[in-house]
Amino acid sequence: MMTSTGRPTKVSIVEVAPRDGLQNEQSQVPSVAKVRFIDMLSAAGCQMVEATSFVKLDIVPQLADADEVFPVIRKAPGAHYPVLVPTLRGLERALAVDAKEIALVTAASESFANANLHRTVADSLVDVRNLVSEARRARLWVRVYVSVAFVCPFEGRIIPDRVRSICEQLLQVGPDEICLADTVGAATPREVELLLDALLSLAPPEMWAMHFHDTRGTALANVMTSLAHGIHIFDSAAGGLGGCPFAGPGALGNLATEDLVYLLDGLGISHGIDLERLMDASRFISRAIGHPLPSRVFRAGGKPKTIRVTTR
Amino acid sequence: MMTSTGRPTKVSIVEVAPRDGLQNEQSQVPSVAKVRFIDMLSAAGCQMVEATSFVKLDIVPQLADADEVFPVIRKAPGAHYPVLVPTLRGLERALAVDAKEIALVTAASESFANANLHRTVADSLVDVRNLVSEARRARLWVRVYVSVAFVCPFEGRIIPDRVRSICEQLLQVGPDEICLADTVGAATPREVELLLDALLSLAPPEMWAMHFHDTRGTALANVMTSLAHGIHIFDSAAGGLGGCPFAGPGALGNLATEDLVYLLDGLGISHGIDLERLMDASRFISRAIGHPLPSRVFRAGGKPKTIRVTTR
Repeated sequence: MMTSTGRPTKVSIVEVAPRDGLQNEQSQVPSVAKVRFIDMLSAAGCQMVEATSFVKLDIVPQLADADEVFPVIRKAPGAHYPVLVPTLRGLERALAVDAKEIALVTAASESFANANLHRTVADSLVDVRNLVSEARRARLWVRVYVSVAFVCPFEGRIIPDRVRSICEQLLQVGPDEICLADTVGAATPREVELLLDALLSLAPPEMWAMHFHDTRGTALANVMTSLAHGIHIFDSAAGGLGGCPFAGPGALGNLATEDLVYLLDGLGISHGIDLERLMDASRFISRAIGHPLPSRVFRAGGKPKTIRVTTR
Repeated sequence: MMTSTGRPTKVSIVEVAPRDGLQNEQSQVPSVAKVRFIDMLSAAGCQMVEATSFVKLDIVPQLADADEVFPVIRKAPGAHYPVLVPTLRGLERALAVDAKEIALVTAASESFANANLHRTVADSLVDVRNLVSEARRARLWVRVYVSVAFVCPFEGRIIPDRVRSICEQLLQVGPDEICLADTVGAATPREVELLLDALLSLAPPEMWAMHFHDTRGTALANVMTSLAHGIHIFDSAAGGLGGCPFAGPGALGNLATEDLVYLLDGLGISHGIDLERLMDASRFISRAIGHPLPSRVFRAGGKPKTIRVTTR
């Protein structure tokens, strides 16, 4: 469904704070706090929560408790809890705890694939193909992230044709969703336009999710441009939790779910999340990690008190 | 000039940090630091710097040194230094220091006009008319702010027809520019669309400036929508300095000039400001006020180091 403005009337938000947010925290968050956080996100109406990552324990120690956390989180009816799975070993662990949805990772630049995945891009695409085959056997839903789809911290701008070529190969592998990540938070609406123009001839809007970081404040502007292209799946993190180790010491991270929700409410686009309960979850995790969160809407205390919430 | 995307190719940025930014600071910034700050903004290429306010000394003590600061700032060739003038007495002070451009203020809601201007909206429009007449006699350039043009902290949403009616009356008075202010930082692109649709039938894009606060992270999204309507004059504050006393204790304020410049550079829209030198000015004022600034681009250290500055 589209509005008269050409924007979708409904958007699916993928809440990534428990994985992409917490994995960048300096301090170790207690497993019980993670479980409580995810349960609060579910209670706020989040229908898609990337819950954790089954990465090697020594690579992301913050999420080394994935095998304990995942089985304990309360799975809300109709909600989904994808987990990041970088390897076959990770997939086995995900299956052992009965995960139904997984997320895989590749990258759009050789330097980033090398630094982050210790693979060439071609080898990482082989890994993805093998993992998708295994996942299909287990009837899992599969998303694939394309990291640094706009800007690489080592190589600079990534040309859309490069991403298009990778996505063409991914589409042959047959994932359920491809997520285009602005890993360093450097994209502006012009790059979003150019990339989506290149990709929407390959597959319709429902194939693509956008994962923006708000490092340079452009995330919501990029969402606007994506909406105008019919995209209706967006990643964000409660409170704006998270950051990118490549983005510098003072830099802020993921697009905040509060800010995204506020924008969508203003546009009259439904999303199913209750802003006040979401902020309860952010307040909880902010205390657990011991520092304030950067979401502007969260800091402002939500909507102006004179404006009633009109969604839901 | 428009690009193929319908966006302007050139934008005029009105730097408001010395006035709208500093007036909200808790600490008193030394006059010499203000002068140095404005000079650094000029050196960064800012061509329009709202330098100070000739408001009554007891109302905004932070800017009580306007009569001393204004004559001393280095007026760069081709640059302009408008000053806020709320009353006839303020206009006399502005003329005494040879200001060439002034900014007047009215508001779109009775409650805000009463709280902030101690006037009804109708009386404030009479004040504006009298001030414009006097300013014309002195051959000054005149901008008029319409405060709370989207959302009032007391009354909630302001309907576009209300703003249209005020702007109709203002246009009869004949200012050079009308600036639509999202004073509490609550507007989303939908409200921007609705308001601009209502106003652009009254006067062409060059009459309107947009003054967004980034309290809820929507400022750049609102800029995108304004650009799509042909608007090419935007207010912003170096470092995101400033805040609104009505927006709550943790809330952040003005759209940051760094974030606006980064967006415009990405869109290939020229603006004349050098991002690195602008950040020098922000670093300077951050030290002078003794706290960090919220601009995301400033915090991230500017563009990714692998991306070269392509403007200028």
